[in-house]
Amino acid sequence: MRSMEFLGSHILSIDQFERPDIEKIFSTSDHLLPYAKRERITRILQGAILSNMFFEPSTRTRISFGSAFNILGGEVRETTGIEATSLSKGESLYDTSRVLSGYSDIIVMRHHEAGSVSEFADASRVPVINGGDGDNEHPSQALLDLYTIEKELKSKNKTIDGLRIALIGDLKYGRAVHSLCKVLSLFNNVTINLVSPEKLELPFSIKESFSNSSVSFFETDDIKEGISDVDIIYMTRIQEERFSSRNESDKYKGLMSLNQEIYTKNCEPNTIIMHPLPRDSRPDANELDSDLNQNPNLAIYRQTDNGLLIRMALFSLVLGVDKKIEDSTSEIAWYSDK
Amino acid sequence: MRSMEFLGSHILSIDQFERPDIEKIFSTSDHLLPYAKRERITRILQGAILSNMFFEPSTRTRISFGSAFNILGGEVRETTGIEATSLSKGESLYDTSRVLSGYSDIIVMRHHEAGSVSEFADASRVPVINGGDGDNEHPSQALLDLYTIEKELKSKNKTIDGLRIALIGDLKYGRAVHSLCKVLSLFNNVTINLVSPEKLELPFSIKESFSNSSVSFFETDDIKEGISDVDIIYMTRIQEERFSSRNESDKYKGLMSLNQEIYTKNCEPNTIIMHPLPRDSRPDANELDSDLNQNPNLAIYRQTDNGLLIRMALFSLVLGVDKKIEDSTSEIAWYSDK
Amino acid sequence: MRSMEFLGSHILSIDQFERPDIEKIFSTSDHLLPYAKRERITRILQGAILSNMFFEPSTRTRISFGSAFNILGGEVRETTGIEATSLSKGESLYDTSRVLSGYSDIIVMRHHEAGSVSEFADASRVPVINGGDGDNEHPSQALLDLYTIEKELKSKNKTIDGLRIALIGDLKYGRAVHSLCKVLSLFNNVTINLVSPEKLELPFSIKESFSNSSVSFFETDDIKEGISDVDIIYMTRIQEERFSSRNESDKYKGLMSLNQEIYTKNCEPNTIIMHPLPRDSRPDANELDSDLNQNPNLAIYRQTDNGLLIRMALFSLVLGVDKKIEDSTSEIAWYSDK
Repeated sequence: MRSMEFLGSHILSIDQFERPDIEKIFSTSDHLLPYAKRERITRILQGAILSNMFFEPSTRTRISFGSAFNILGGEVRETTGIEATSLSKGESLYDTSRVLSGYSDIIVMRHHEAGSVSEFADASRVPVINGGDGDNEHPSQALLDLYTIEKELKSKNKTIDGLRIALIGDLKYGRAVHSLCKVLSLFNNVTINLVSPEKLELPFSIKESFSNSSVSFFETDDIKEGISDVDIIYMTRIQEERFSSRNESDKYKGLMSLNQEIYTKNCEPNTIIMHPLPRDSRPDANELDSDLNQNPNLAIYRQTDNGLLIRMALFSLVLGVDKKIEDSTSEIAWYSDK
Repeated sequence: MRSMEFLGSHILSIDQFERPDIEKIFSTSDHLLPYAKRERITRILQGAILSNMFFEPSTRTRISFGSAFNILGGEVRETTGIEATSLSKGESLYDTSRVLSGYSDIIVMRHHEAGSVSEFADASRVPVINGGDGDNEHPSQALLDLYTIEKELKSKNKTIDGLRIALIGDLKYGRAVHSLCKVLSLFNNVTINLVSPEKLELPFSIKESFSNSSVSFFETDDIKEGISDVDIIYMTRIQEERFSSRNESDKYKGLMSLNQEIYTKNCEPNTIIMHPLPRDSRPDANELDSDLNQNPNLAIYRQTDNGLLIRMALFSLVLGVDKKIEDSTSEIAWYSDK
Repeated sequence: MRSMEFLGSHILSIDQFERPDIEKIFSTSDHLLPYAKRERITRILQGAILSNMFFEPSTRTRISFGSAFNILGGEVRETTGIEATSLSKGESLYDTSRVLSGYSDIIVMRHHEAGSVSEFADASRVPVINGGDGDNEHPSQALLDLYTIEKELKSKNKTIDGLRIALIGDLKYGRAVHSLCKVLSLFNNVTINLVSPEKLELPFSIKESFSNSSVSFFETDDIKEGISDVDIIYMTRIQEERFSSRNESDKYKGLMSLNQEIYTKNCEPNTIIMHPLPRDSRPDANELDSDLNQNPNLAIYRQTDNGLLIRMALFSLVLGVDKKIEDSTSEIAWYSDK
């Protein structure tokens, strides 16, 4: 099993990582927890500049990367939307990348076209982190999902080896699910319940890839069956922006929906609930009902908090400061009860 | 009279404050003046992150909050416009708030819906400051207006107790006016001339609330009468974005307009002129003519400068660093003639 | 020959500068190279705030100014697009400027209207740098172009005095070309080949101004002739956003196009290729073919890197810290191979 060299590397796909790499990212995340929790501050990236390039809308991922860089002491220059950029004047991704990489020390990029971030990274003079390229990859999401799974299981004395998980909803277009399937293949004796309308089932290529791993999977369109024997429910949103029309996506909204009553009747006690967010809370979708908000097994906000840690860890490893954090710490002066 | 606890609190409405609270904010603002004037720098909020969430357009308020946080040494992550956010994918304010509050130490939010910021604050894990929710509240504006009134009166050996003020223009939709009326009710012997077209008069509920205070008010649609016997003229813009149509709002534009000639003929000497800005300088509106720009009693830019101080004071008090500013100061290195 | 005082000055037009001023900017840029190359960091502008106001779309220039300010240790507050601002509520540039200059220590502004930035600067209480006003001026672009010319020539033991350069493409609307022509007039024995379709030729007023200088110029619409006897090719994009319609601009796209074959057949060895960027790489335009990307004489990315230096130099000179950079330096902690 090879292990990757993080220093100066691009982070483009979950495929880059073997188990030792993932363990390194997770132990780095653990180590950074006091800074995310605002117990101490570090200025280790003081003077460094992140170009946070979001050519496709995003709140959570964009701010999470930006805040992660700020917490490490660096500065953030940001671009949102494609209209306001040189790409709209016919500039190639190659040129945008060559130029921008002269202005910054690291780049995070999201773009609606699959493969665009890799193309961008090829031309870049600084490390590039994929913040999501169309329905293709979103590696930091897969890492934060896996990190959350590990932490939640640990609190119940379980490990990812042996995990039973239900993936529910839009398994066709949800890139978070695709990446999560890939990374779960690195572990032993994982059982996956694939729960979706038939038309939104997991792409064949991913199911096929399970045959090279110790993953067992089962498919169903019955959510009650799917959630009955798992450690973790991973719910997803119908990715309406990837469908040919809103009419088409509306057919599937609301078909896979979980609330406290269904949970209580069908799940094992303390089954953990995750979601890559945003969850669609409009009445016609409502994949995770708000009556679950008080359920202590609802891990969705712990999941986004973990996202901040994972992104801090990626920056630290790629920029080679993971062993130097303590060189530049001090007390926080302001009030915080995080 | 109760006094609020600032530490870790949300700032949502001018109704939260009693006179001692306001005095505390104002004395903190006074204390922060050398930093706003660039005589010294402080880094007391080094490492802290503000999420500056403007779901509705704003230049002045957005940049003022951001700069205030920067001057105190903190970092700013910013979102502008609603299209580019998860809210457009059906995410609830509850989820947006839970998630974002994990990425930041304090949040400023503006949103077009009345009540939205309170709903957001209820879900937040960090303090939230209302940057304006529809036609409802904009507490930092009311505070900076009142602070300006106090400072301008002081230079003339007067106090807010005993103030005579004319509120002019769109008194129906102008939230700055509504909040200012509320806060003036805390003072003694205030006289308010309400000057507006009949259809844009101050809401009945606010006029009614004056009966529990020592405020006297008079209503007129004659600007010359309204400005003749006051210490301060507070002019406002027709809030065209709150009307059902542009046609509807255009009816009222230009009806209440002040220029140097009207001022000279009708006002007492040295009557102070304020405006919450932006002033509409298009010929059909022109509520404050540009020939007033050289009038030393035009306080509109002193007013926005005070806004920076008030926002610095709110951040300092809520984050509990108001007594620690000096712990982290140094000389500025660059040229400034502020 | 007068020399300008940089301290506290606006940078509005290339016309402000005489040769000693330009030499000062260039030597300051040279001096700042270690910081742009990430060999050391400086925090000299710690606490200072740049308002980066881009009322017209820009990626490169906006990020370049922002990063330049960050590298010097300052903070950046940013506005992009005109819709989201008070200008859309009828606020005058005068008011926007008075207000904003109270929130920041220096302002960079881009706006689609020629002359708007000067008007803005007149009202400002802090220095303003023109980031491009319509088809009028973009002084930092002209400076970075000239700086690149000097450095590229120096590596070939040549100087700007005696330069032979071809300006190619949209010479009518390209403000970068206009400013470059002005600044080249300050040097001795410069020869300019003006290569454009007849309808897009250089404005008469600029050609006329050459008569007061030692510039010789020649006009042609034959690119092969134009590039045959020069040290530097300066290619430009058809500025489609300045034409009355897309139909109109499309007539000229692709007429002036350079690729490796044309270069090899027609140019002197090691002719340098520049472009103000963005280059339009769409097949119908393609002014500089991507087969030139491996040509070591393609200086377009060195040019944008120089842009960062020039902007750092302008900030340093205007804010008076050019002699103090070393007062506040330290080692960088993170990995960089710039």
